[in-house]
Amino acid sequence: MITLYHCEAARSFRPLWMMEEMGLPYELKMLPFPPRVFAKEYLAINPLGTIPFMTDGETRMTESSGICHYLGIKYGPTPLMVSSEDPAYGAFLNWMYFSDATLTFPQTLVLRYSQHEPEQRNNKVVGDYAKWFLGRLRAVEAATANADTLCAGRFTAADIAIGFALRLAETTGLAKDFGPNVAAYWTRLQQRDGFKRAVAAEQKAGIEQNVASRVRA
Amino acid sequence: MITLYHCEAARSFRPLWMMEEMGLPYELKMLPFPPRVFAKEYLAINPLGTIPFMTDGETRMTESSGICHYLGIKYGPTPLMVSSEDPAYGAFLNWMYFSDATLTFPQTLVLRYSQHEPEQRNNKVVGDYAKWFLGRLRAVEAATANADTLCAGRFTAADIAIGFALRLAETTGLAKDFGPNVAAYWTRLQQRDGFKRAVAAEQKAGIEQNVASRVRA
Repeated sequence: MITLYHCEAARSFRPLWMMEEMGLPYELKMLPFPPRVFAKEYLAINPLGTIPFMTDGETRMTESSGICHYLGIKYGPTPLMVSSEDPAYGAFLNWMYFSDATLTFPQTLVLRYSQHEPEQRNNKVVGDYAKWFLGRLRAVEAATANADTLCAGRFTAADIAIGFALRLAETTGLAKDFGPNVAAYWTRLQQRDGFKRAVAAEQKAGIEQNVASRVRA
Repeated sequence: MITLYHCEAARSFRPLWMMEEMGLPYELKMLPFPPRVFAKEYLAINPLGTIPFMTDGETRMTESSGICHYLGIKYGPTPLMVSSEDPAYGAFLNWMYFSDATLTFPQTLVLRYSQHEPEQRNNKVVGDYAKWFLGRLRAVEAATANADTLCAGRFTAADIAIGFALRLAETTGLAKDFGPNVAAYWTRLQQRDGFKRAVAAEQKAGIEQNVASRVRA
């Protein structure tokens, strides 16, 4: 059984969405954010204290896009993955890695220095990395100019991985600066049944977590 | 023919090292850093202006760890890759994604706000992300406590991807804070013939670039 540790709107949404698209059974464990502060017992499970954390038998993973990759290979074959014989294989892999290393980290800086730690608000850094994110996002704007999805002519795990970075931009306030192609692409992604099921699973788990907290209190 | 665009000590060292370990033929193009400032013609090749950039036929990639992954699959089979049947597959993938998203980006902040742009020096951010990097590096310290390499009981592309993050720490000044296991692991990596060949290729290309610049000047 796959177990996924998740916080609301965190990047663990990527594997959650992937599992919903694949129809995989899983257990979702919701944690308050940041867990290393509000759920110290979590450090015994994941010593880094980071989200996501996924266990599948003896396998333990912490990287959200890497978990999507793992699930697609381990529980495939699935059209969500692009095979190495496909001419789009390099592009597919590049989006997978780009999603977190290039499109998510800059947004965590915007969050950190504008919202999470108000006592250390730093508009210079927020501006630097908002600009950095939007600069790199030009690659998505170009890729979706004449295509509904990023690569291979179909919806793939790359769209899930990149799609989460667009979802995060709603939280960081950067979604208002999306180019027209990215904005239309993001609207299309949110209309998918798999996306809606993942959002519903997140909301349901969040409500159960709140009830459990009140019962304990 | 594989063409790799590289700047000295940049993360394009990952695919350079990978190609040397695999014995692949390639063309290495050295650029001054940052190319978007000192080699504006590069923007016609890679519109993002980022390094690395790799072309292989019609394939174009910008993510350093993703390129290693691509090369290992496309030009394998090679013991540098871990197959999906191996119990270490999840760990291998996790290190591949962890290498850039988690262990490289925080160091680029340390560089940016301490060295690259002295007029915007920001010791708070440098301290925040030095701490962040060293916190995440505990995963490497734990993995190398009783093993020569990160996973699968042998040297793999994961060691190349993570090894570059350790090389970068020499530049960012964070290598002095390595734990004993990471320090010993990093020493072992530098003793590999493949690593030495990659460093030699980088130096040779750098010298040729300098000669070419002087001839043009």
